[in-house]
Amino acid sequence: MRVSQGLFVTWREAPSDAETRGIVMLSRAGFVRKLGSGLYANLPLMQRVLLRLEAVIRQELSGVAQEVSFPILQPESLWRESGRWEAYTRAEGIMFTMQDRAGRQLALGPTHEEVAVAVMRDMVQSYRDLPVSMYQIGRKFRDELRPRFGLLRTREFTMKDGYSFHASPEDLRAHFEVMSGVYARLLTRLGVRWRAVEADSGNIGGADSREFMVLTDVGEDEVLYSADGRYAANAERAVSRPAEATPSPFHTFTRHHTPGTATVATACAVLGCEPAHMVKNVLYDAVFSQEGGTLLVPVLVSLRGDHAVNPVKLWNAVQARAERFGGGTLISLEVAQTGAWAEGELPLGYIAPDLPDRVIARREGLYPAFLRLCDEAAAEARNFTTGANEADWHVTGANWGEHYQLPDVVEVRQARAGDVLLHDPSQVLHSARGIEVGHVFQLGTKYAQAMNARFTAADGTAQPFHMGCYGIGVTRLAQAIAEQLSDERGLVWPAVIAPYQVILTVVDVQDERQMQAAESLYAQLRAAGVDVLLDDRPERAGVKFADAELTGIPYRVTLGRALDQGEVEVKVRRTGEVRRLALAEVAAALQGEPGWATSPAGAGRATLLPHA
Amino acid sequence: MRVSQGLFVTWREAPSDAETRGIVMLSRAGFVRKLGSGLYANLPLMQRVLLRLEAVIRQELSGVAQEVSFPILQPESLWRESGRWEAYTRAEGIMFTMQDRAGRQLALGPTHEEVAVAVMRDMVQSYRDLPVSMYQIGRKFRDELRPRFGLLRTREFTMKDGYSFHASPEDLRAHFEVMSGVYARLLTRLGVRWRAVEADSGNIGGADSREFMVLTDVGEDEVLYSADGRYAANAERAVSRPAEATPSPFHTFTRHHTPGTATVATACAVLGCEPAHMVKNVLYDAVFSQEGGTLLVPVLVSLRGDHAVNPVKLWNAVQARAERFGGGTLISLEVAQTGAWAEGELPLGYIAPDLPDRVIARREGLYPAFLRLCDEAAAEARNFTTGANEADWHVTGANWGEHYQLPDVVEVRQARAGDVLLHDPSQVLHSARGIEVGHVFQLGTKYAQAMNARFTAADGTAQPFHMGCYGIGVTRLAQAIAEQLSDERGLVWPAVIAPYQVILTVVDVQDERQMQAAESLYAQLRAAGVDVLLDDRPERAGVKFADAELTGIPYRVTLGRALDQGEVEVKVRRTGEVRRLALAEVAAALQGEPGWATSPAGAGRATLLPHA
Repeated sequence: MRVSQGLFVTWREAPSDAETRGIVMLSRAGFVRKLGSGLYANLPLMQRVLLRLEAVIRQELSGVAQEVSFPILQPESLWRESGRWEAYTRAEGIMFTMQDRAGRQLALGPTHEEVAVAVMRDMVQSYRDLPVSMYQIGRKFRDELRPRFGLLRTREFTMKDGYSFHASPEDLRAHFEVMSGVYARLLTRLGVRWRAVEADSGNIGGADSREFMVLTDVGEDEVLYSADGRYAANAERAVSRPAEATPSPFHTFTRHHTPGTATVATACAVLGCEPAHMVKNVLYDAVFSQEGGTLLVPVLVSLRGDHAVNPVKLWNAVQARAERFGGGTLISLEVAQTGAWAEGELPLGYIAPDLPDRVIARREGLYPAFLRLCDEAAAEARNFTTGANEADWHVTGANWGEHYQLPDVVEVRQARAGDVLLHDPSQVLHSARGIEVGHVFQLGTKYAQAMNARFTAADGTAQPFHMGCYGIGVTRLAQAIAEQLSDERGLVWPAVIAPYQVILTVVDVQDERQMQAAESLYAQLRAAGVDVLLDDRPERAGVKFADAELTGIPYRVTLGRALDQGEVEVKVRRTGEVRRLALAEVAAALQGEPGWATSPAGAGRATLLPHA
Repeated sequence: MRVSQGLFVTWREAPSDAETRGIVMLSRAGFVRKLGSGLYANLPLMQRVLLRLEAVIRQELSGVAQEVSFPILQPESLWRESGRWEAYTRAEGIMFTMQDRAGRQLALGPTHEEVAVAVMRDMVQSYRDLPVSMYQIGRKFRDELRPRFGLLRTREFTMKDGYSFHASPEDLRAHFEVMSGVYARLLTRLGVRWRAVEADSGNIGGADSREFMVLTDVGEDEVLYSADGRYAANAERAVSRPAEATPSPFHTFTRHHTPGTATVATACAVLGCEPAHMVKNVLYDAVFSQEGGTLLVPVLVSLRGDHAVNPVKLWNAVQARAERFGGGTLISLEVAQTGAWAEGELPLGYIAPDLPDRVIARREGLYPAFLRLCDEAAAEARNFTTGANEADWHVTGANWGEHYQLPDVVEVRQARAGDVLLHDPSQVLHSARGIEVGHVFQLGTKYAQAMNARFTAADGTAQPFHMGCYGIGVTRLAQAIAEQLSDERGLVWPAVIAPYQVILTVVDVQDERQMQAAESLYAQLRAAGVDVLLDDRPERAGVKFADAELTGIPYRVTLGRALDQGEVEVKVRRTGEVRRLALAEVAAALQGEPGWATSPAGAGRATLLPHA
């Protein structure tokens, strides 16, 4: 392709709303153009990157799963069958829905579990036809509360989503590991730093899931991992052993007048103890969606003074207790607003674990029930300090069972760097930030049971399918790579997904010898199957060099004065390394490597011109 | 791929709602599965066909246009700018729309002219950067009134849509012809019978458009063409010279009592003339959408008794006169319902061209205006017979200018087989049915002007882009091929898009020699880059033969008793031809042709085993 003949536009400035280096560079280099909130057009260079990335994904999945393509439009009835219609349209509300001309509701698929189960239910009857593993690459939609970070959180994005169906949990587990291996190979082949972590399953459900994170400081997720590589988890889900607390300095249960100490830090300073000696008690309001309306359930959570609540774990703990209140789906869980109490009624900052039912409930008999929960670490505290249920008063030397009834014990503490591994205190947890680019789940029989999708087992009984699902955010992965590999001059693409492998920069297009050499090299490289871009614009050399750096093409060949010696310069974008090569030799040097196919589908690893 | 290890399901019966052979066979062979009205899942075999078809399209467009991908979700504001929001959401109502969580309207793109113009307006400022030609392959959505015929008319489908931008109408016209050439090469390469025809532009607008039709009896469109190949047009748009009428037998203007002759046929029988001697007058009701509401405009159309109205031409003629009534968009045009008149007020079947204004308007002063139109052929009639504006009475020997004022003359007649070419009476029009699989348009500056998308021309002035657009219905084309090429035994795929090129059928999988020969051939063919399917199921040979025919894979290799002589049978699906080849030679015979690449992107022409 000649730069003069295509849509190649670069910008000095990034759009004012570009928050990360990745989207800044993708915008400036003319890879993408924002069309609206969370909506991006992929321009020719980006489209080449995406096609190559999809081709690499297809290669890695070849022999593991079969490609299909499902409709984006999904009938409401399927989501009613799985029981997810309400949660996706009401609670989180991330699913776009619309009415067709006949007045029926349709959803724009944010995911395709229901469709995959419906297809399997129709097509497969016997264990003999299992397992089945299928995937598609296509658009997904989410009505995000706050689209941001370029392609990382959009309302429309490209995803590889896969679904597998098995006759047994063992077969599912084996395929889950095969699929994890595919993801690991893919990310390694792309040349990015990544980590697989234990993850929370969120609304997708199921017992076991694993995330694949591309590590970069702009990542929305925190990863906690041990240096020996044996443990890594999303901080949302990580479990750990907290640093041991020193023994409490208090041994008798005593009330203290502690005015103006409504925070852990100020109370500790006045009382002369450490945050780890305290138990703090925090009130949350949980809202459940139930048939006929919503139900508010207050939740009092006790945890150690030096710990923070993990909102995902607390959410799961509260949801798991829904049956006590008549069931339903948790749709909101937030720290209670003090405005709900009369002045002085709630001893804020001085709450004790035995805050009276009446105060929790705000008004006698208002709520049918409420929850008291205590984090595991707080449950182990001895002679602890806590609030006295009266403003400006604390107690010290308190113990569970003696002064307070121990509530339901749960693990709701946020793990953090510095904690040690649960089963190996010699290993300390470290923290890194990452972008979730892949997620694999063992869903079990949840969907098959809900949608009555069964096969005839070897023993003749009807059994629900055991199901797994496997996602890669394709557009998100492309930007994650841009985030991690770009530098202050622009993008840096791994050769395997670079839009072009080589750019030929003609220093002076008026110089006939330079143009002739460029045309000849261009023809040679194209004939050899190398994807090559010829920058033949009548621009200053500096502009063209800067554009080449910005665009991130792995190798730049400069055709300039060195031609006096019959030579060209080859610059490696990733390392900045520059070599001089004889013009006659450069085509041979720039071809013949497995990564240099013309077609996206043929993209492979590139090892040409070994990096310094 | 081994049949035993993938999702390959065939059915004896087609779904009861499958109307054409193409969708019957695609359903029975397990290529697609219907998920809802106008919504289909593409299963693994279909997905392979589609990927190959898309790859062939990309190959043909390589060097002509650059690939991009636009969001499917489109903000209302863009469609307001182009002025199409109302027409697409109210009038035809084929666009799905929804509200996001912020209450803003979004559309599911049925087409992407607005987005392409918005991108160009942002990215390209100078004539130096023109022309730009881009395309995408992706999903499109239409809220069809009546989804039907499988993939031919669905609510979600895959389309290749392209948009080009030019500095001059000449450059646009040249690119339009280049793009037509791409479409012609593509269809020829696919090995189908097709025809390019002049077309109506519909709602897309613009002056000049051309359709590409795959010819098959189940096609929704009628094509009229001359035997010499110089004229072909969609019947919606075709112009022709009607067969000449013989001179009228009447020479004086006379009233006749003709009770019970409200049809052309009965009137001619009683009066002793031919339909071509009559002028019939038909009342239509046109409804315009205007700011603040709708406006009803009655239209009286006069045309020759042996002619029919072409609804598309009439629609265009009425829309073109919208300014007379204050402008607006025509949203409905139907023959007037007689219920709107008082008993005996409208002389139905006996209307004259001078039906009084008051009768047309139904009530004095009700409508601000109405239209009287006369078709060109009727305008040439002499001494014609027509209604007398009184039930049971006709007049004969009437003439325009003498007995009736000639209304606006327009060309609204439906051309038909048997007519002759407008400019060459020696050429008679023939009729065929076709499926529209491609459509190319010269849109001109319509969108650029509406959306204020301009570039700086060589003379320094700001000029609107000249725009073209170019569509191929990818899923529709796949089924059109199935319609035309399939036979009573199943699908017949051209090798260039076949899901697999070869199927190896093992007659008896218990026979160790047969399985060994199959495994060895399977490995050889895969190593040689041939896409091969190994039918290793423990089924009866008859079942496997029938499935191979149904699936439409170009070559079947049967491994059976002929192995006693060291031979296998090769059967060509399209011709039914069977050959015996030595086992040792068959891999060599089945490989090495340009059409036999492993990857969809590498698919080319297949000429192996020349057809009988």
